[in-house]
Amino acid sequence: MKKLVAEFIGTFWLVLGGCGSAVLAAAFPDVGIGLLGVSLAFGLTVLTMVYTIGPISGCHLNPAVTFGLWAGGRFEGKDILSYVVAQVLGGIAAAAVLYIISTGNGSSIGDFAANGYGDHSPGGYGLTAAFVCELVMTFMFLIIILGSTDKKAPAGFAGISIGLALTLIHLISIPVTNTSVNPARSTSQALFVGDWAIPQLWLFWVAPIVGAIIAGFIYKSVFSKE
Amino acid sequence: MKKLVAEFIGTFWLVLGGCGSAVLAAAFPDVGIGLLGVSLAFGLTVLTMVYTIGPISGCHLNPAVTFGLWAGGRFEGKDILSYVVAQVLGGIAAAAVLYIISTGNGSSIGDFAANGYGDHSPGGYGLTAAFVCELVMTFMFLIIILGSTDKKAPAGFAGISIGLALTLIHLISIPVTNTSVNPARSTSQALFVGDWAIPQLWLFWVAPIVGAIIAGFIYKSVFSKE
Amino acid sequence: MKKLVAEFIGTFWLVLGGCGSAVLAAAFPDVGIGLLGVSLAFGLTVLTMVYTIGPISGCHLNPAVTFGLWAGGRFEGKDILSYVVAQVLGGIAAAAVLYIISTGNGSSIGDFAANGYGDHSPGGYGLTAAFVCELVMTFMFLIIILGSTDKKAPAGFAGISIGLALTLIHLISIPVTNTSVNPARSTSQALFVGDWAIPQLWLFWVAPIVGAIIAGFIYKSVFSKE
Amino acid sequence: MKKLVAEFIGTFWLVLGGCGSAVLAAAFPDVGIGLLGVSLAFGLTVLTMVYTIGPISGCHLNPAVTFGLWAGGRFEGKDILSYVVAQVLGGIAAAAVLYIISTGNGSSIGDFAANGYGDHSPGGYGLTAAFVCELVMTFMFLIIILGSTDKKAPAGFAGISIGLALTLIHLISIPVTNTSVNPARSTSQALFVGDWAIPQLWLFWVAPIVGAIIAGFIYKSVFSKE
Repeated sequence: MKKLVAEFIGTFWLVLGGCGSAVLAAAFPDVGIGLLGVSLAFGLTVLTMVYTIGPISGCHLNPAVTFGLWAGGRFEGKDILSYVVAQVLGGIAAAAVLYIISTGNGSSIGDFAANGYGDHSPGGYGLTAAFVCELVMTFMFLIIILGSTDKKAPAGFAGISIGLALTLIHLISIPVTNTSVNPARSTSQALFVGDWAIPQLWLFWVAPIVGAIIAGFIYKSVFSKE
Repeated sequence: MKKLVAEFIGTFWLVLGGCGSAVLAAAFPDVGIGLLGVSLAFGLTVLTMVYTIGPISGCHLNPAVTFGLWAGGRFEGKDILSYVVAQVLGGIAAAAVLYIISTGNGSSIGDFAANGYGDHSPGGYGLTAAFVCELVMTFMFLIIILGSTDKKAPAGFAGISIGLALTLIHLISIPVTNTSVNPARSTSQALFVGDWAIPQLWLFWVAPIVGAIIAGFIYKSVFSKE
Repeated sequence: MKKLVAEFIGTFWLVLGGCGSAVLAAAFPDVGIGLLGVSLAFGLTVLTMVYTIGPISGCHLNPAVTFGLWAGGRFEGKDILSYVVAQVLGGIAAAAVLYIISTGNGSSIGDFAANGYGDHSPGGYGLTAAFVCELVMTFMFLIIILGSTDKKAPAGFAGISIGLALTLIHLISIPVTNTSVNPARSTSQALFVGDWAIPQLWLFWVAPIVGAIIAGFIYKSVFSKE
Repeated sequence: MKKLVAEFIGTFWLVLGGCGSAVLAAAFPDVGIGLLGVSLAFGLTVLTMVYTIGPISGCHLNPAVTFGLWAGGRFEGKDILSYVVAQVLGGIAAAAVLYIISTGNGSSIGDFAANGYGDHSPGGYGLTAAFVCELVMTFMFLIIILGSTDKKAPAGFAGISIGLALTLIHLISIPVTNTSVNPARSTSQALFVGDWAIPQLWLFWVAPIVGAIIAGFIYKSVFSKE
């Protein structure tokens, strides 16, 4: 139970921090933080949480990570469902808090920080580019997670490596899909936006989880052997 | 006494660095550091001080942190008052130095880096949004502090985690309240601005301290048990 | 073989992350990440990979690094060729993925993130400035790599030092040559751009490798002796 | 001798990286790195060098640091002169390389990255503000250096703390004096600019060294005692 509370709080922080910075501060007039600031914010939610709840739940905060760690032989299949539920609920709770704050100056939520492709890609990227991008980015995210938490890696540095990997992924791919690599994060925003965001949500479950599972199997078969 | 000097110097640095970057460099023409630079500056004041005075005083630099650590069972109640006084005095000293520097080109201090809500929120956010934001941000700040300094966490990394948590909090919430999460920081600026900043100061004592105390009790009851 | 897969994946990530952020996000309207974001992205590809594949292959990701480590007495000459081939192939694979993504909104690749001098230097810098810049930057990169992985250096921090060194190098020199210091990265982009980028490619093999070899010999002769 | 070569190379890197990013990339059209990027660059020169030459020379790279460590009882007075000479020569060598690169597109060096006050302060700050700012910033820099390298501090993290302290100092004070806190850095630029920069150079020797010495004595008398 302590693990599920940790995953709930951690995913709450990922969505509140990452999506919150995007909604509240990215395009603030003249001094806004831009996509660079949003990228940093997403990464720092994970960095801070690895050092906070890593020893408790492993700090997944992301259904794709949970599936990828299972494929890599680091997580038991029977615990996947409860982790994913806790992550999605944490994300939704964060979206609710962000709704309260962001509408506090009279503005509407617009597209919140929802993920999309085609007409709803920030840079107008189509379905294929979006799918490839999400799959490859999550693949590399899991390779980094599996490598940085490998017993061969120097102890303690995984939080820096994994957190800043998420920053890097956002630096590359926000223009393509607004960057998901995390179905819980995508779901939390789509539920509040409704409309177009619901029918596009499938991609942000399928592509990240497929990429993560491939990474898990490859890491296990290529790099884990002595 | 050595501890109180450390808290004085540390809070001096937090206010001089964080508020100083905001006042002097955020909106510098063409090449200003923006809210991203200010967020980084606030976080780096804490990161640098954790490695400098952490072993001496614990490096609170913030009355809300002191109250939260007390609620979490990590700090003795009898030492709260002296810590808070040292923090507030350090903040005021920094505001005085910043006053000398910032007026050195003939400009007035304007609103300095004071915190505010409603008409004095950078993005026009009302009282409720401001209160919720400050409370939740300080709640998460304390969860991170308590987790990153837990004996289960990897040794030495707390400065990175806690410092960058403050950067993250600013990336999210400067548009809402100019970000406090720290009553000493807010007080130091309000005293120099006077006017509207004094009657709004209560929120930046109440919301952060309430959020911090809730975090302390939750962390202790949920995560500290074996 | 495990080592070559690691170098392939690592260089894939360096090019996809570094060049990808430049092509997709640097000049995104209003909120683009700029040269600062691109610099951070390049550095974070290396930082994340050091913690992921460092224990497997040493994480060179760069023919100049491989030559420099050989000159510094840290790598065997007989393994240079296979490492360089894996790096170049990894870079080309990344360029192919980036081609698929970046053309997914109907735009052409233009100059991709190719390196150049003279008319093809971002800031119009000539051949001499470009050669000096690439040579000196790679020289210092290797000094940092050799020093940070020296047995005298604190264990575990090399990924931070080396990754952020590459960020720093980009902060300085993108305007001069679009920053290479890495022949595999330059080759991957030049092959897709063709045209002017092919005849300029020699500089981005010669200058980095010469700078790296000089650094290796100097480090070994000055700093490695007890 | 190995120590002096290390100080020469390290200060070379500080000036080439910090001043180089300012001259070449800060104001690059549309995507320039701004004062935030320059601040990061200065800090990363020190971060990378601490992990590279820290075990060799202590990585001062700065006459004020050398004086401050002497005042703090960490460095022998008889070695001050040779360290300072090596630092100044390393800075001048870097300025020469930067001259070659930066004029490679036909532009003049203008004010290079020289430090100044009054009419030559970036933001028009007068002598008093400039002196107070340089003194206080160097004071805090030395407090951080002395604390982060204290035997009570966690091992290995000093490079991060000290490097990012220099980033922070630049985030605050570039508008005031273009930020020195380092007489070697100031001298290297002033020699190439000549003109107004020479008669203003005294301040960037006196204020940093005075601030550093005060910090050394205070740290030793307040924090070093058991």
